[in-house]
This record gives sequence, C-alpha cells and structure tokens, in this order.
Amino acid sequence: MSLLQATIQQIRGQNQEWRQQAKNRLDQLAIPHWALGRLMDLAMDLAGQTCCMRPPIARKAIITMAGDHGVAIEGVSKFPQEVTPQMVANFVNGGAGINALARLAGADVIVVDMGVAADLSLLVQAGKVINKKIAFGTANMATGPAMTREQAVQSIEAGISIVNSFSDHYDLFGTGDMGIANTTPSSAIVATLTKQSPTAVTGRGTGLDDQQLSAKARVIEQSLRINQPDQSDGLDVLAKVGGFEIGGIAGVILGAAALRKPVVVDGFISTAGALIAHSLAPTSREFIIAAHRSMEQGHKIMQEHLGLSPLLDLDMRLGEGTGAALAMPIIEAAVRILTEVSTFAEAAVAGSDK
Amino acid sequence: MSLLQATIQQIRGQNQEWRQQAKNRLDQLAIPHWALGRLMDLAMDLAGQTCCMRPPIARKAIITMAGDHGVAIEGVSKFPQEVTPQMVANFVNGGAGINALARLAGADVIVVDMGVAADLSLLVQAGKVINKKIAFGTANMATGPAMTREQAVQSIEAGISIVNSFSDHYDLFGTGDMGIANTTPSSAIVATLTKQSPTAVTGRGTGLDDQQLSAKARVIEQSLRINQPDQSDGLDVLAKVGGFEIGGIAGVILGAAALRKPVVVDGFISTAGALIAHSLAPTSREFIIAAHRSMEQGHKIMQEHLGLSPLLDLDMRLGEGTGAALAMPIIEAAVRILTEVSTFAEAAVAGSDK
Repeated sequence: MSLLQATIQQIRGQNQEWRQQAKNRLDQLAIPHWALGRLMDLAMDLAGQTCCMRPPIARKAIITMAGDHGVAIEGVSKFPQEVTPQMVANFVNGGAGINALARLAGADVIVVDMGVAADLSLLVQAGKVINKKIAFGTANMATGPAMTREQAVQSIEAGISIVNSFSDHYDLFGTGDMGIANTTPSSAIVATLTKQSPTAVTGRGTGLDDQQLSAKARVIEQSLRINQPDQSDGLDVLAKVGGFEIGGIAGVILGAAALRKPVVVDGFISTAGALIAHSLAPTSREFIIAAHRSMEQGHKIMQEHLGLSPLLDLDMRLGEGTGAALAMPIIEAAVRILTEVSTFAEAAVAGSDK
Repeated sequence: MSLLQATIQQIRGQNQEWRQQAKNRLDQLAIPHWALGRLMDLAMDLAGQTCCMRPPIARKAIITMAGDHGVAIEGVSKFPQEVTPQMVANFVNGGAGINALARLAGADVIVVDMGVAADLSLLVQAGKVINKKIAFGTANMATGPAMTREQAVQSIEAGISIVNSFSDHYDLFGTGDMGIANTTPSSAIVATLTKQSPTAVTGRGTGLDDQQLSAKARVIEQSLRINQPDQSDGLDVLAKVGGFEIGGIAGVILGAAALRKPVVVDGFISTAGALIAHSLAPTSREFIIAAHRSMEQGHKIMQEHLGLSPLLDLDMRLGEGTGAALAMPIIEAAVRILTEVSTFAEAAVAGSDK
C-alpha cells in the first residue's frame, strides 16, 4: 500500500467521548454558560482530536511549503517568479512576516522546497531548507496539466513524510505557502471542488487591478476548459490545476490527521490544500483549525464548503503561514480555558438561580 | 483643578508624524502592499499613540474593576449578587477566566473593589485587592439615580489614579469588569449616548430567556424615564444610570490616554466605560484598542459610535477583561510586524513589476 493510501486509511474522526468529557467540564466552569464561546468550541475540538483533557499543543511548527507555477508566464501576478526563491532566503534569514509571527507564537518555521524554479541546494546543504523538490515549477496549466498524477501523489506524500518525520518533535502543526502566482491554481481548485464559476472565486492576489483580475479569471477559465479536472477526484484536480506546494500542504493535513494532531490551516492557498485533503479523506477536516478569513474572495467559499469557521478576520492576505501563527495563541487560550479555569464547585461560586 | 479636569486637559490625539513614519516603513515591507491588513493599521496606531517606532507594550496589566448594582433587585440577572464578591475571590485565587488568559498573555491582573456590596477588607489587607470602594453597590436606578454626581467623579478619578500609580510599571493596560447585573446600566448608557431605544441595545447578559429579556428592557426604559440622563453630559449619564466599576473603567481609559499608553478595551461593560470617557474627552478614543465584539447585542452599536473595529469576534460574553487579554498577543504581533519584518531592500527581494 502506498504511503498516501495508508495515511488515508489511518484517519478517524474526532473522538466523541473525549469531546463529551471536555464539554462536561466546560459546562461547569464558573462563568455564565458557554460565555467564552468559540474558545470553548475549540477546546472541545482539541480534546476530540488529541483524546486528552490536557490537549498537548506546546511544541509548535509552521511548515511553509514553496513552489513555482508555470502559469506565472500568463501574467497572473504582480510579482516576478524570482521572488519565490528570494522569499525562501528571507524565511531562512528570519526576516519575513512568518518569522516574526512564528517567534511570537513560539513556533519553529520549517521551510520546504516543493518545487521552486531555482537551485536551492546551498540552503538545503546548510540544513535550512528541506528538499522535496519535484520539479523546477509546475507546467503552465493554461495549456495542459500542471503536473502528472504521479507528481501529485509525490507532492502529497512529501507533506505526509515531513509530518511523520517530526511527529515526535511537535504537537501542533501550521501550514504555510510561498509561490508566485499560486492564488491562480488555488482559485482553479476551489472553482472545481465547490462547482463555482472562476469569477466568483478569483481574487486580486498580490494586488491586481480590475483589468488584471479579469485576465486572471480568463486564464483560470481556460485552464479548466483545457484540463477538465474531475471534481470527484482530488488527485486529478491537483494534477491538472494544482501546485506542488498545494499538494504538500494537503499532505501535511492528511499526515497530521492520521497522527491525531491538530493542524492550523492558514489562508487561501493553504485552504486549497485542505480542499484536496478533504476530497481524498473527508474526515481530515475534523483535525483542521481554520486560522483566519483571508481577503482573497474565494476563501469564504472554501471555508463554508469545509464547514470551518475561521478564528480571525483581520484583512490579511500574505500567506507564508502568517495567519496560522497568529491563531496559535488563541488555540493556547482554548487549552487554558479547559485546564486552568475553576468550576462553580471548585471556586465556591453560586450558580444561576433561574 | 480636579484630577479629572487635569487628566482630560492632558489628552492629545495620536501623533500624526509617528503614524506617518510607521506607515513609511510598513509600505516598504517585503510583502504585497499592506498584506497584513489590520495588523498594519494597528502598528500605525501604536506608533501614533506611543510616539515610538518600537512601541513599548511588553509590561501588561488587566485592571479588573468590580462593583455591585442596586438594580439587581429588579431581577435583571440570572445570578445572585453574592456572585460578585465570590468572583473577586476567584480572581484573587487565580481560578477565573481572566487569570488563565492573562497568564497566557503575560499580563498581571489588578483587581479593584470599586463598590462591591460585601466587605472585602481581608482581601484588601492581604494586598490582593485595591480598595477604591465608593459604596456597597449603587442605588437602584429604576427608582432614582444610581449614584451622586460626586460619586461619579470619584469613580472616574479612582480609575485615573490607579493608572497613574502604575504608570512606571506597565506599558499596556487592559480593562475588565465584574458586577452582577452590570449589562443593565451598560445598556442604559449606550441607549442614552447613542440615542437608541433600550430594546435595540439590551441583550441577554448572562443568559436571559425572551421573557426575562423583555423585563430587563422595561427596567432600562423605566430607569431612563425616571432619571432623564443628559446625553451631552457623560458625568450625568454615569451618575444616573451607570455603575462604580463603569466609572472606574472610564477613568482607566482617560488616564491611559493622558499618559499616551494604549488601552485595550474589553467587551460590553468596558465599552460602556469607553462611551463615558469619550463623552468627557472625545480624543481618548484614539488610545483605545477594541479587543473583541461581544455577543451582547448593543456592543456593535457602541463600537460603531466610537468608530472602533474589534480585533476578535469569537462569541464571547464573559467580561472580566478576558477579551482584552486574548487580544494582547495580536497587539504584540502588530509590534513585531513593525520591528522585525524586513523591507524589500533589506531582504533583497524584487518588488511588484506592474
């Protein structure tokens, strides 16, 4: 059996008994009933995911997956493709947004070359970047499949194997991405898997104007017309209109779910990875914590499709894992509520009288 | 000149030059323009508040103000009044929601007796509670003014004097409240100062059913009819339909603004305090960071009146300062973005090409 098949078979949903045990305690806390709202919902999720009343989340990592996209040649981004390796170097040097926010969250940043269109071997040799390079960028999906089906499997298995290799080191994973033009394949994925029109799910990415936005939507329409991705088959969608880093993110989610570890999914590109993971193993969504609502307009449609409510909504659209890192203190807060707040009985506080 | 008058005279708005200096750096960060959204807006606010490109926020305190309310006798809360001193004891023992979330945020919790209807002298003597008790609870505002005008001034000055006494110890203050029935005076304050009907701004508090909610709105209507608070005079509003802890919170906000320190305002009751502060010194709002959007329905109206957008919206309605504590890591994140993220030039990353 392949690593992908074995991982999918291992995924079970949240444990209902642990969820109930958490609920029983939360119901008794010396506060008006459920007055900490979503923090309490999240505490139940964490108990159901980890099968623990003290859900372990102290050791945290953001896995930032980088890859390039042949479709960049269609002019769908405001930035040149060379920015992808430049930003990888910035991650390694600690100067990017994700570095700043991961340090605040107490999370390590693990940078992975899934398919950057540049030679990163010096950074790999220095131990700063994990090498899972599948190719020097995908092919241009506007003229044919972005990758082969074998490469799609390979990209997902790369993500799974990274999570597995770190399973003894981290309790909580976050996803992140870097790849010039990668809102374009992400829009194609959400259009396919949620059966929406490209215009409904295509946004401004790094800051396109109206004309550029229309052109981008047309590129996505053309990619879907030429490739005809099969919406019942996540691997086909990933291969035809996806990206290597998007496959890697799907693998991180599947791997974390199989290990019963919560995974904090960042923004638009990461959630495209979650759609692929969900298509292959629907139950994987029960291990996802949706970090935030991106400015990218298709993100809401993705999250509704997955039945996930984001924790934050702060007009962010950077990617890299920045939303995931920013959400991590809120996840810690949920654990604190479950483990550190006294019940009415423990605190000798009178309950509701009506 | 009174402490209140002197404090109000000292308040100036955010410094536009420091805001601009922060914007200049944020505009150059190696990210798509303003792609960290509200974090970047907040970083500009912090620079404008503190007149600093490295806004100091490391030393944090939540000031949790406790008081009782004569109007509790009208049956407007599901909980008996004895819960107020019991929760104060819970704060002191470290078992409440605010303790858990403040520990996570690295913030101290400062508990103040503004007017609890119980003898807290043992906790005061033990140095666990600051004594600013004005009376053993307010009078019943449904039958007359909640307090005298002198007591209203006294309550605000208590908040100012606490902030002043800690000005060398803390960089960032958060507000919190405890007081059975205190959504009732808060609703009366927002109804008065935003000219809304009591039914539009009255919510379920600790969990009232429909019938109890209607009865609560009628109590508020009666209180406004009997007292006729003058909406152009924040002191009159506080005296007639306010509370001691609400006045104390208003004082914390005014005191922080006068010291040019940002103040994180929690939920519905704290924002009632902010409305009073704003009524007395409109510019004070420029030092407020709105932590979250409470479930309490009048909160949105309050925040819109003040022109403040909350950072979080997680269905919380506990008070105590819990929302303020939960927002503190986001405020730290804004500072990290301003101080730790490289510019395009520093990171040698290519800029936008269109």
